Amino acid sequence: MSKPIVNLCRIVAAAVLMLCVLSLTAHAQAAADPLPSWNEGPAKNAIIKLVTATTTAGSADFVAPGDRFATFDQDGTLWVEQPVYTQVVFSLDRVVALAPDHPGWKTVEPFKSVIAGDRAAMAKFTTRDLEKIVFATHTGMTTGDYTALVKDWIAKARDPRWHRPFTDLVYQPMLELMRYLRANGYNTYIVTGGGQDFVRAYADHTYGIPPEQIIGSALDTDFTYNDAGKAILMRPPKLLLNNNFSGKPEDIYLFIGRHPQAAFGNSTGDREMLEYTQAGGKGALMMLVLHDDPAREYAYGPAEGLPASKVGTFTQALYDEAMSKGWNVISMKKDWKRIFSFEK
Amino acid sequence: MSKPIVNLCRIVAAAVLMLCVLSLTAHAQAAADPLPSWNEGPAKNAIIKLVTATTTAGSADFVAPGDRFATFDQDGTLWVEQPVYTQVVFSLDRVVALAPDHPGWKTVEPFKSVIAGDRAAMAKFTTRDLEKIVFATHTGMTTGDYTALVKDWIAKARDPRWHRPFTDLVYQPMLELMRYLRANGYNTYIVTGGGQDFVRAYADHTYGIPPEQIIGSALDTDFTYNDAGKAILMRPPKLLLNNNFSGKPEDIYLFIGRHPQAAFGNSTGDREMLEYTQAGGKGALMMLVLHDDPAREYAYGPAEGLPASKVGTFTQALYDEAMSKGWNVISMKKDWKRIFSFEK
Repeated sequence: MSKPIVNLCRIVAAAVLMLCVLSLTAHAQAAADPLPSWNEGPAKNAIIKLVTATTTAGSADFVAPGDRFATFDQDGTLWVEQPVYTQVVFSLDRVVALAPDHPGWKTVEPFKSVIAGDRAAMAKFTTRDLEKIVFATHTGMTTGDYTALVKDWIAKARDPRWHRPFTDLVYQPMLELMRYLRANGYNTYIVTGGGQDFVRAYADHTYGIPPEQIIGSALDTDFTYNDAGKAILMRPPKLLLNNNFSGKPEDIYLFIGRHPQAAFGNSTGDREMLEYTQAGGKGALMMLVLHDDPAREYAYGPAEGLPASKVGTFTQALYDEAMSKGWNVISMKKDWKRIFSFEK
Repeated sequence: MSKPIVNLCRIVAAAVLMLCVLSLTAHAQAAADPLPSWNEGPAKNAIIKLVTATTTAGSADFVAPGDRFATFDQDGTLWVEQPVYTQVVFSLDRVVALAPDHPGWKTVEPFKSVIAGDRAAMAKFTTRDLEKIVFATHTGMTTGDYTALVKDWIAKARDPRWHRPFTDLVYQPMLELMRYLRANGYNTYIVTGGGQDFVRAYADHTYGIPPEQIIGSALDTDFTYNDAGKAILMRPPKLLLNNNFSGKPEDIYLFIGRHPQAAFGNSTGDREMLEYTQAGGKGALMMLVLHDDPAREYAYGPAEGLPASKVGTFTQALYDEAMSKGWNVISMKKDWKRIFSFEK
């Protein structure tokens, strides 16, 4: 064995001695609580129980690191979805921005109401109306141009209540939860009814989740060539994946090929994802976020006389299913010490 | 600082000293050649050049580790595709196995010819015939049952030439290439015209590629419940993704959300994938495997008077495009020192 190799190793070992002392000391402090924005209670306990059971070698529920998956709905689960989904705000803003190029829109619904800023009319939009708006604003361009549009918009747009970038309105406890899972070998995926490419444009920066771990509703793409003969992908007005309700487990299977060990949602659109997760095995964790904190965020849903909501519908039937199947309901009011990172 | 922490660290440092010596010594030997089954030449040089350029900090073509992607066609690129695709053999075997439950098949094409073992008739099957066979043998069951069928079949089936499991017929140079890329921070994806779930059933064990990194042609799935009320996914006779030709870059975008830095194929079905990869940037690497070694494998394709083939078609036009665009053609005969791991 060569002398330089042994000497190099002595230096490495000395450095390791120092780093080890530093990191173990730091770890002893940090390990105190991986979820500091969560109050002590059944929700926090259930999360720690899942991670302990699936990561402890020899445990009956142990899962190999490469097989650990957790899936998260986005709107209402990771960030604010009221009064309307952020992607709807983007779409309406795009209609206004594009209106000068489409003079006919001034007299044709649903564009007419959007351009006029008629909130009462917009509140009555049907799914077909919204589809027309999405197709008019999200298609007919390359994938790269669409991503650039979203990045530009999300950097500038502000929400109407806190007057902050929408990406500030993520729930601090969920960020901690995702980090805690990743630190324990979990792959964290977003599984959203929103547009896959919309979310991809900011998810890496906002959640630490890269594009290949975003599953969402997706338009088809058309491979073609630009005038310079370069390969490009165009966005036609054709939906390929409707990633809501039963679409969620179907697309989880398409992208991941197996059951997650944990799934997090907040509405009826997440029901099938949680059922599929539970079907994967006895140690699985299913959680639903209940919006019951009007002071710090919003209040809607099945419990304690909360109003129903068309956005992020959480029915009594879903609540009853959660109770009967041992799913966990996260009370934003009781379980979350802090909701946003910008809170005092 | 506590005494136990310092003592623990001393033990760790001593262990590190020992492991470091062992691993550096081993590394000094292994690092000599990451691609031992490749002969020296332009193909091997191009691979090493890509990895060096994309992983050297400060290089103009440097790519952050999380953004490094390489995509591989399977049939004819990673394993043998002659005389017919392995999945076709599986499908024909399934027809024979299922025939007793379908007495009508004996008099109805294309099943009749398969059951009779009429090779001449089978050689003339149209795409529509093969689709009928795939739908009859790959659908009407849960995703779990299908995977179990494939795992069982692939463990028992033997190829007609080497009389070995099909999973032995992978190309050793490509296994080394995938390991080399992964060791350098690359995510290695299979992007196959074959069935996504078919490949997923053995890819982890065969290539070290997990289910979430297999992109393939895919049936739709239908979320439903079994008699016990458990959530399941059924396989209906409906194609969702046709992952061939332009479908490859479209699905790469759907799954990964960006251009790979390297793409490997062997036929016209891979053309658009390579064009899309090249469109991603100047440092990209595009390679096509040329089957020109009848002694060790098969010979078909555009060069040196090789016969054309319906399976794994490599046209003169594709060869010309490769030459004009600076893609690399890998000669199995000249570039590969060893083709299979079982070779002497």
